[in-house]
Order: sequence, then structure tokens, then C-alpha cells
Amino acid sequence: TAILVINCGSSSVKFSLIRPLTGETLLSGLAECLLSSTARITIKQGEEKQSYKLTAPFNHQAALTVLVEHLRQLNLVQYISAIGHRVVHGGEHYSEPRLITEVVEQAIAQLAKLAPLHNPANLIGIKSCQQAFADLPQVAVFDTAFHQSMPEKAYLYGLPYSLYKEHGIRRYGFHGTSHYFVAKQAAKYLNKPLEQCNLISAHLGNGCSVTVIKNGKSVDTSMGMTPGEGVMMGTRCGDIDAGILFHLVDNLGYAINDVDKLVNKESGLLGVSGLSNDCRTLEKAMLEDNHVQATLALTVFCYRIAKSIASYSASLTQLDGLIFTGGIGENSSWVRTEIVKQLGLLNFSLDEDKNQATRFGASANIATKNARAIWVIATNEEWVIAEQSALLLKNLAK
Amino acid sequence: TAILVINCGSSSVKFSLIRPLTGETLLSGLAECLLSSTARITIKQGEEKQSYKLTAPFNHQAALTVLVEHLRQLNLVQYISAIGHRVVHGGEHYSEPRLITEVVEQAIAQLAKLAPLHNPANLIGIKSCQQAFADLPQVAVFDTAFHQSMPEKAYLYGLPYSLYKEHGIRRYGFHGTSHYFVAKQAAKYLNKPLEQCNLISAHLGNGCSVTVIKNGKSVDTSMGMTPGEGVMMGTRCGDIDAGILFHLVDNLGYAINDVDKLVNKESGLLGVSGLSNDCRTLEKAMLEDNHVQATLALTVFCYRIAKSIASYSASLTQLDGLIFTGGIGENSSWVRTEIVKQLGLLNFSLDEDKNQATRFGASANIATKNARAIWVIATNEEWVIAEQSALLLKNLAK
Ligand SMILES: Nc1ncnc2c1ncn2[C@@H]1O[C@H](COP(=O)(O)OP(=O)(O)O)[C@@H](O)[C@H]1O
Ligand SMILES: Nc1ncnc2c1ncn2[C@@H]1O[C@H](COP(=O)(O)OP(=O)(O)O)[C@@H](O)[C@H]1O
Repeated sequence: TAILVINCGSSSVKFSLIRPLTGETLLSGLAECLLSSTARITIKQGEEKQSYKLTAPFNHQAALTVLVEHLRQLNLVQYISAIGHRVVHGGEHYSEPRLITEVVEQAIAQLAKLAPLHNPANLIGIKSCQQAFADLPQVAVFDTAFHQSMPEKAYLYGLPYSLYKEHGIRRYGFHGTSHYFVAKQAAKYLNKPLEQCNLISAHLGNGCSVTVIKNGKSVDTSMGMTPGEGVMMGTRCGDIDAGILFHLVDNLGYAINDVDKLVNKESGLLGVSGLSNDCRTLEKAMLEDNHVQATLALTVFCYRIAKSIASYSASLTQLDGLIFTGGIGENSSWVRTEIVKQLGLLNFSLDEDKNQATRFGASANIATKNARAIWVIATNEEWVIAEQSALLLKNLAK
Repeated sequence: TAILVINCGSSSVKFSLIRPLTGETLLSGLAECLLSSTARITIKQGEEKQSYKLTAPFNHQAALTVLVEHLRQLNLVQYISAIGHRVVHGGEHYSEPRLITEVVEQAIAQLAKLAPLHNPANLIGIKSCQQAFADLPQVAVFDTAFHQSMPEKAYLYGLPYSLYKEHGIRRYGFHGTSHYFVAKQAAKYLNKPLEQCNLISAHLGNGCSVTVIKNGKSVDTSMGMTPGEGVMMGTRCGDIDAGILFHLVDNLGYAINDVDKLVNKESGLLGVSGLSNDCRTLEKAMLEDNHVQATLALTVFCYRIAKSIASYSASLTQLDGLIFTGGIGENSSWVRTEIVKQLGLLNFSLDEDKNQATRFGASANIATKNARAIWVIATNEEWVIAEQSALLLKNLAK
């Protein structure tokens, strides 16, 4: 038995067919450029990869039709026991996965106010799968769920309390399934139950967030009501003085929507470097061409992450270790060195040989002997979604 | 010889006549409610206090006229060797005090773009004093100057680099004279030159900021381009998800100016508690009435400050101690306890007896024996301004 995991964006669908117990991926792929005539789908199985052009109306439904046909030909449909959907925003309703019912769909739709780019796309994925896989249960796994354990002092902003009570303006946090997955892995390394682990986890990909985990539960995280807060990211600025936004509008002639675009799409590594949002490109420019702004972008990026990690020492009385994950965290030994060398007061220190050796999917503790643990752990959100979907169904069947 | 120190706000003037060498205050006072018919001035000398109603046009000039007359009657005018002005924003031009010339005035006026509430008021004070004390040199001491030693990684935002280069959008930091003063005092406690001291300083008053000092120099601080960033304050929210501001405008019908007002005047301790921006009032409500939102406001306030302090461990490889100053930092033992109990991983721990005993202007190390030092130090920005003004004149006279 396997779970089909769906991560639906506004013009893309990522999917993987996963055995929930082992994490084995039977098949995976991506439909992209949806809603345009260049829409295509790529399906991978082991070493094999096949691409198809989609036909009109070039939408998510069209992509799923091709996927279902492909699965049928491979005789895989019969193994699918459920569809597990990544849903970005579960608000305060959902701290656990849910079987998707009409009520749940309505809640996801309502939460689109808080996640206008994500929840509507997730809903399209749900609707399309309900048609393509009419007989299968659909499960929603929320990116915010893991963070619902945060205490008030962490999720409240310094804003009028009524904005929280009446409009749900609070920190929700994202990347929850990823932080949860790597924390579970770290617990295995520590050889104790997750409930006894105190960890700080840095998920550094295109989006970046840092989470602090106390006794196995998220107690604070750097992303906020939206995924724009916190550390600097590929194209997002992260923490910024609100006064700058007013200044841009009042004195520099920006429209508020331009400011939104500026801080979410034109900032971060891309904005500071003026070159790219891609960490690999920047490292190359820095190391091979001595590119000043690329160096600056990476330096600011790492300093801000180091400060964020250090800040979470205030949330803990014990700290077992630090986790790096995500495309940058798993691969960039330069970024890890730069961050960890700023964490000496917290007794973090890096074994440079181990650091260099741990890339491209490898997992290890890269700390020096007597220092606090630092793990590189390859994240696997799809596996968590598959596992939690299967578990939910098992519990419902009882 | 003495320096007349002037701190001019849009509707107030604070002044003190100070001996620069000893810090002795010969006279001090406040003109308030300026530009309204209730404008008045209060002048204190030792235990004595005198108040006068001001006459039309009820402005800063009117207040200074009364002050000059008062000083003349006391035979004090002859001792004044210069006027030292607190100027809020010195931008990247000024990392030191300056004799006020036309060029300096123009620079202060230009920087009003970045400090629209403060610099214009400071200029009014300068102009008025130039008339009232035509023969005396006027010196500008900038609130931002101490922070000009910050490295790029600390002062750059994750924004397009051009916004920094073309429009000066960067972190400047404020409360510089206060952080500098208390750092100097801490150096005395440590019995080593300031240049060898590594400190974190928390100025907690109506405005609040945290600064990290490496080898005697500011290397990062929580306030940003404006004084609204960083930790939560009396009426300012401090750090906030920029996405919330867009949400308020796009979905909740706020005008951008209402958002500005919201985060600067209606948030912070006032906003969360729904009761008051005054720490004393909130402590009373919490301790005597079990006021839930007052407790919440103080809890969020302290947690955010603790995180900010902890974050600056990333800027240091050595840390000599932590400093509390400002109205709250100097007086609220509750706030200090609440903050320090969250800093255990950095080896901070508080001696509760010493903590309780150190209030109302007392200075002491309130840490437990083997833990890192924690000083309560009463700030004295006026003394720094007097001292720096006198020193500048001495150097110019050479
Ligand atoms: N070998 C590498 N060295 C440095 N950075 C890398 C490397 N491989 C991938 N990355 C970076 O990882 C980031 C993408 O992370 P990923 O987790 O895949 O993104 P997403 O958040 O979209 O899932 C990019 O900035 C990319 O440059
Ligand atoms: N005894 C006290 N206990 C707690 N807070 C106090 C005490 N005395 C003063 N404060 C607080 O100090 C704050 C004002 O700080 P101050 O440094 O005077 O302000 P400013 O930033 O305007 O100079 C107020 O919140 C006030 O309640």
C-alpha cells in the first residue's frame, strides 16, 4: 500500500507515490507551467523519466489525468490507499492532519485570507484529486500544524490584542512537516524519544525558517503570520523595519503592492547580490570571481540566520543540538561554516572535515568532539505526509 | 564652566545645565505642551522647582526666553560655555559630535526624511538657541553616532542593495549616547578599558533597544532605520511580519497611515495589555488585580527582549556581561527577573536579593556569583552630551 502525496501550487503540481512505512518512493514527478500552453508533466520512476506535453485546458486536472493514466499503465493505481495533500495554512483550527470533508475544505478556503498564494492552489489540488481519485480518501497535512504548540508569548505580536482575537493576526509558522521530520531523525541520533529532545532546526531552502523545539514540540519559529518573516531567503528580505515600508510609500513613491513585491520577490539573496537568488550561483561568484555583492549577500544571510538560531536559546533551558536541512542546509558547507562560527558562545563548533564530507543527501553529526551536536539531515516532507495520512486512516478505521 | 544640554521635541524642550567633568546638574527642567495655550515651563534647581505659564506664541523660543531670564537672575549664564544638542539622526555623515555650522544644519535637515518626527524638532531647538545664546558655540551630539561602527552585515537589510546606495536605507540605530554611557560605566566595573569590553546593553524605557558592543564599539543594535524596529516598546510593536501590514491594507481596509499609527502609537505594551503603555501600571495590574492582558503584555515584552539579547551572542566570541538601563531597566526587578531567567543557556543568572535591592538609581552587579555579570546602571545621556560638547570645544581650541 502507498500514499499519493500531492503538493499543489498555483501553476504546478508536485507528486510522489510513497510507501508510508519505509518512505520508499515508487514514483514521483512534477507538472509545471500549468494554465499556459507550455504546460508539461514529468514522471520519474527509479532512473526512468518521461515527459508529456499537456493538452487544453492545460490545468491541474489535465495534469492529473495524465498521471492517472500513467499509474494505470504501470498497474500502480490499485496500491494507492489515500491521497495526502500538503496544505500550507491550517490556522488555529488544525494542529493535526485531517480527513478532507466539506467542512475542512471550507476552513481551508477561509484561511486563504492568510495565505492567498497557497491555500487556493491547495484547494485546486484537492478538487482535482477528488475527481481523479473519486474512491480514495483525501487527507490534508498542514504546514502550520507542528507549530500549533507554540506558547502565547511566541505567537503574539506586539500589536493590539484585538487584532489577534478578531482577525487571527498571530505567528503561525511554516515548514512544519520538515522541522518535524528532521527533529524525529535527530531524536534517533540522540537515541531518546522526541519528547525528550531540545533542538534548534534551520530549514534553509528557497524559503528559510528556524524553529526551536522543546521536549519534542515547536515552541517558536521565525516565519510568522506569512512565510515572509524571519531570516533572509532567496528573494524575501525577512525581518525588516516596518518604518522602511512607510518610507518607501510616503517618500519614495512606491505603491503598497510594489512594496509587497519588493520584499517578497526582489529582495533576499537576489536583492543584496543583484545577481541571483540561488545559493550555488552566489557561492560560485564569490569563490571564483570575488563578486563583492554575492559575498555580501551570503554574509548577511548567514549572520541573520546565526542571530535567529542564537535568539532561540532564550526559549530553552537545555539544548541537545542544531539541525541543518533544506537545499542550502543539506549542501552548502560554506554556509554552515559561516553560521556556526558565529555560535561559539553557545558552544557550537564545527569539524571542517566532517562538514565538507556531508553533502548531497548525506546525514551526519558534523560538530567537533566536545561541542554540542550539529546534524545535517536531508528533509523528507513527502514521507511525513504519507506517514501521517496512513496513520490517520488507520485510526479512523479503528 | 557648564554645558546647557538641550533635547528638543516637537512640543517639548528638556534642558539641563551640567558640569561636563563631574556630571553635576546645576539646573534642569522641561517645557511642555508647546504650541498650545497650556504651554508651560518647569525649572528645577536642587530641591526647588518653579513653574511658569508661557505667553504667546507659546513656542520653543518663548520657552527659551523664560529659561534665559531665569538663568540670568541666578547668575548662571556666565558659566555656560556651550549648548549641546541631542540630535536624533546623524545618518552616515556623523559618527562623532559636531560643531553646528550651516553645513551641519543642512545635513540635519536633509536627514529629516529618515527621522521626520525628530530632526525637524531638533532643528527648531538649534535655531532657537542660536537666537537665545547668540555668542555661544552650539554642538550636535547624534543618537545614531555610536552605532556607526556597525559592520555591513549588521546594518544591511535583505533588500536590493540599490536602496541602500541610493536612498540610505539601512540600520542606523538609536539610543547611542545611552548605550555608550552605560558601556563606559560597565568598563569601570570590569576595571579594564572600554576597548577591551564585550557587552550587551538593554535600554528599556518608553523606547527600548538592545545593543551589542564588541571591543568597546557598537556592532549591532535592535532599532533600525527608524526607532520602530526591534524589541517591543511602550506603544511600538517592534519586529513584525511585513505581510501583516499588507494584510491590514489589502484585506482589513486600513490606510497606510493608519497602519503607521497602529504600529507606532497603539501597539507594544499598550496594545497587548489594552490598558497602558506604562510598565508600572501593568505590573500593578498584574500583581494586584491578576489582569490577564497586562500579564501577557509584560510576558511577551520580556520574551522578545530575551530573544534579542540572546541573538547578539552571534556577534561576539567573548561576553563580559549584560547591562540594564532606562526607566524600566533601572527600576523593574520583575522585568529583569523575567528576562534573565530565559538566558540560562548563556550562563546568565540573577541574584534575586541583589535584584530587588537595585532600583531607583542604584547601580550594581545583580548576577549570582559564578555567572556572567549583569549590571543595572542608571543612564545619563545629558552628561555624555555635556562631556562630548566640552571635549569637542577643547579639541577645536587646540
Ligand atoms: N550544492 C549546493 N550548494 C549550495 N547550495 C545549494 C546546493 N544545492 C542546492 N542548493 C541551494 O538550495 C536552494 C534550494 O533549496 P530547496 O530546499 O531545494 O528549495 P525549496 O525551498 O524550494 O524546497 C537553492 O538556493 C540552491 O542554490
Ligand atoms: N519603579 C518602576 N517599576 C517599573 N517600571 C518603571 C518604574 N519607574 C519607571 N518605570 C518605567 O519606565 C518607563 C519610562 O522609562 P524612561 O527611560 O523614563 O522613558 P524615556 O524612554 O521616555 O526616557 C515607563 O514604562 C515607566 O513605567
